[in-house]
Amino acid sequence: MTIRPHIAFLGIGLMGRPMAENLLKAGFPMTLWNRTAAKVADLAGRAHVAGTPGEAVARADIVITMLENGPVVDEVLFGLGTASAIRPGAVVIDMSSIPPALAREHAARLDGQDIRYVDAPVSGGTHGARAANLSIMAGGRHEDIDEVMPVLECLGRVTRIGPVGAGQLAKLANQAIVGITIGAVSEALLLAARGGADPAAVREALMGGFASSRILELHGERMIQRQFQPGAPARIQLKDMRMVLDEARLEGLTLPLASRTYEAYLALIAEGKGEVDHSGLLLQLEALNQVHMGGKTPHRHEES
Amino acid sequence: MTIRPHIAFLGIGLMGRPMAENLLKAGFPMTLWNRTAAKVADLAGRAHVAGTPGEAVARADIVITMLENGPVVDEVLFGLGTASAIRPGAVVIDMSSIPPALAREHAARLDGQDIRYVDAPVSGGTHGARAANLSIMAGGRHEDIDEVMPVLECLGRVTRIGPVGAGQLAKLANQAIVGITIGAVSEALLLAARGGADPAAVREALMGGFASSRILELHGERMIQRQFQPGAPARIQLKDMRMVLDEARLEGLTLPLASRTYEAYLALIAEGKGEVDHSGLLLQLEALNQVHMGGKTPHRHEES
Repeated sequence: MTIRPHIAFLGIGLMGRPMAENLLKAGFPMTLWNRTAAKVADLAGRAHVAGTPGEAVARADIVITMLENGPVVDEVLFGLGTASAIRPGAVVIDMSSIPPALAREHAARLDGQDIRYVDAPVSGGTHGARAANLSIMAGGRHEDIDEVMPVLECLGRVTRIGPVGAGQLAKLANQAIVGITIGAVSEALLLAARGGADPAAVREALMGGFASSRILELHGERMIQRQFQPGAPARIQLKDMRMVLDEARLEGLTLPLASRTYEAYLALIAEGKGEVDHSGLLLQLEALNQVHMGGKTPHRHEES
Repeated sequence: MTIRPHIAFLGIGLMGRPMAENLLKAGFPMTLWNRTAAKVADLAGRAHVAGTPGEAVARADIVITMLENGPVVDEVLFGLGTASAIRPGAVVIDMSSIPPALAREHAARLDGQDIRYVDAPVSGGTHGARAANLSIMAGGRHEDIDEVMPVLECLGRVTRIGPVGAGQLAKLANQAIVGITIGAVSEALLLAARGGADPAAVREALMGGFASSRILELHGERMIQRQFQPGAPARIQLKDMRMVLDEARLEGLTLPLASRTYEAYLALIAEGKGEVDHSGLLLQLEALNQVHMGGKTPHRHEES
């Protein structure tokens, strides 16, 4: 018989709920907290439901936060006095996506109370959360990650990236590649289509070779079908690109393609399209060029 | 018993040789021509070897060109008088990578002699050529592609992209995505590494998700290992990016990421690095920022 650690899970939202359910399924004793209490009421039969985050963490061995962004994590952990209710020796796992520098700051503040810290942001979306196959990017001390590994492995595939903050750096790298690759696919398909090629056939031909990517496969298909309902909204991709540039600035780095992609998303949002899927970056490229990719638009070259 | 068309194959180079050998293996009667005759002498027992391209095409039903670039195709087909030796009714398949506009011009000139034309550039490199699993991007009339399909299928997987020139447009789209994605991966890995993450672990974590691509897999690995011997040299990628921008200009399109990536390759070549692999674009980003990605360089953040 093994004694399972008690987990406090803060943030039972679109991502947090299926993750918490997978941990309940795995048999962990849990206390749940969500800002909007009604959204977690139905789980009261399977876990403790706490009225405040401080109450939720009081007897936890492991505290998991899955919240919207850096400021919200900051407020829930420190603004609401939650941190002071966490027991010394406990481990906080922040699975939210927040700036690496803020993760390091949180780790340092908790360290002052002998509370350990692991940053473990995820990619894979709500589908990955439900299927327990999230890609989990873990930053922190080796022994701390070891200790929480049985918990994280109930949620997906864990990769150790480096010290505290490194998980968040990997997430930023992920978001930078996603944004820029969406831009690359937009430019390539628009070029080919305007020249007279069938963009669906181009995507099909390219999927076999060096140009193949998940973005060409999934987001390329959305561009061709012009299905821009999210998915992942463009305003979130803009926020991600801004975090990439903020981190680059902190490191003294210039990243030309990330900068250009940030500007493109900024222009898309300025056109009032913040709620389209991030693959809708094509719309901004079309607006910039005053053309339409369309499969059926008249082409310039008809000689053959 | 089927009567097999006679194929003239012009350009027995790194790509052309394994392709011609696969067609010989499939049993097509062939005549070969190469500018440097010595390089094709060993095939004289299995095919006719012609002293001039005009002699090579004289009795061919299908003429395949696999040459270095647009000007070379132009010279071999028209400068050397080859076109006038091709029989009316024959089909020219240009498998070289040339500008779409030049492909259309060649098609129009050949059409005046009742010679049909298909552009069918490939991706997959010499490995794909040997394994007969090239990705072949075909542009041309539907019935012309139908007619040469049994030939092309001996060389790889054929996708019909549209009218004449569309195959070349797909190849440009391929090269644009390849170049920009190399830039994206460079920026993402450098950002993560400079922040204190292990770039190999970042690549590993990202391969499972939306950021995954053949470029992250193969070129990301080259960047981490700093193995920049080509592969595909940076000077060729620069030429490809220039063709992308030339085509964009013809279509009146502005492609910001392709432009920025062209400039980055230009700077890399200006630094004397034209012969490094195209994944060596990382070197230019490092030079721009006066830093080194290195797995083992000192990092800024050591607090954990």
